[in-house]
Amino acid sequence: MIAFLVFSIKSKMLYTNSMSSNVIFQKMEITREMRAKHKNQRPVTIWFTGLSGSGKSTLANAIEKCLYEKGRHTMSLDGDNIRLGINKDLGFSEKDRVENIRRIAEISKLMNDAGVITLTSFISPYIADRQKARQIIGEENFIEVYVSTPIEECEKRDVKGLYKKAREGIIKDFTGVSGPYEEPANPEISIDTSGKSIEESAEIIMKYLRDNNII
Amino acid sequence: MIAFLVFSIKSKMLYTNSMSSNVIFQKMEITREMRAKHKNQRPVTIWFTGLSGSGKSTLANAIEKCLYEKGRHTMSLDGDNIRLGINKDLGFSEKDRVENIRRIAEISKLMNDAGVITLTSFISPYIADRQKARQIIGEENFIEVYVSTPIEECEKRDVKGLYKKAREGIIKDFTGVSGPYEEPANPEISIDTSGKSIEESAEIIMKYLRDNNII
Repeated sequence: MIAFLVFSIKSKMLYTNSMSSNVIFQKMEITREMRAKHKNQRPVTIWFTGLSGSGKSTLANAIEKCLYEKGRHTMSLDGDNIRLGINKDLGFSEKDRVENIRRIAEISKLMNDAGVITLTSFISPYIADRQKARQIIGEENFIEVYVSTPIEECEKRDVKGLYKKAREGIIKDFTGVSGPYEEPANPEISIDTSGKSIEESAEIIMKYLRDNNII
Repeated sequence: MIAFLVFSIKSKMLYTNSMSSNVIFQKMEITREMRAKHKNQRPVTIWFTGLSGSGKSTLANAIEKCLYEKGRHTMSLDGDNIRLGINKDLGFSEKDRVENIRRIAEISKLMNDAGVITLTSFISPYIADRQKARQIIGEENFIEVYVSTPIEECEKRDVKGLYKKAREGIIKDFTGVSGPYEEPANPEISIDTSGKSIEESAEIIMKYLRDNNII
């Protein structure tokens, strides 16, 4: 027998007396605040934006490790788990690119509702899309990290060989080569990873999180 | 300065020496297992299915409270946070209904990846859609709870006045009245809430979770 006499019931639902006569109904459910309190943290979304090869995923991964080691509850969203999962129906048309970012933002919001600090690593080259993400997630929960590594450095790394293919015209509309990247005007954090160690870059973000009482 | 010498790096990315010379790279990242371990739980999806008014949301809410009180980390997905958020672009055509359930399943999977026990409350009337959800989420993580309250009882409750509107023809394709509901053949749990208190119904599910070492 489960011992809860003060019982919650969703929205305006009320059961008939036949369902339960000995239960005190109370309009209350588990909230975002309760889930966050459970995890002893302030759930925010850390939104990494920047060119391919700028270091978004590497930095997000580093930050997630730092947070994990501090007992924080995190989730990372990236191409691997989004493009192959919920967004696998989307292509690369303008409409689909907008929808791609919109869904990522909605999922980030749900993750935040679950009390989880969320890290997203997507090029997200358009100001309008990132602005929409900020609106969906909420200004107070949105930390835009512009990974501003210059294209020369990104192209020198060319981890996945994408720049080479873009220069050869094999990949069309490649951000920074044949497609636009709109720089954030007022990102919460801006990091050029060239000439910095990953620890140095990560520390800039960790300091921001500490200074803003997020961790 | 962040003290991690053994450092992880995502997938096949390797930085040039200029990025960092004193860091030992290691292909490792924060995994689903690590996030679950952090929360000391086995992240599963509890998928409530049944007619409108059968008690899905009320039961999900009750279970979430029980789990919360036991220190478990949970998230609830329902019409309120899905239809008004990520799925607000979807209508009620057959194609959109399939897509609605697919996205809910993908989000549940991501929540499980985040280590969170997920509760979903959607009529989800079609066997094929629920089967697809099971595949996406993974057989071992999917607990189908069929809330089998008879339609007469659901209609008697008619919490939102929807049955009345369906009978009057104001709402078309209403599950159980003018639209089909395909009963689960082998749900993990089946509960008829009529004549049971919420505690009694909730205890059936909590017992299942205990017996199967989920909590």
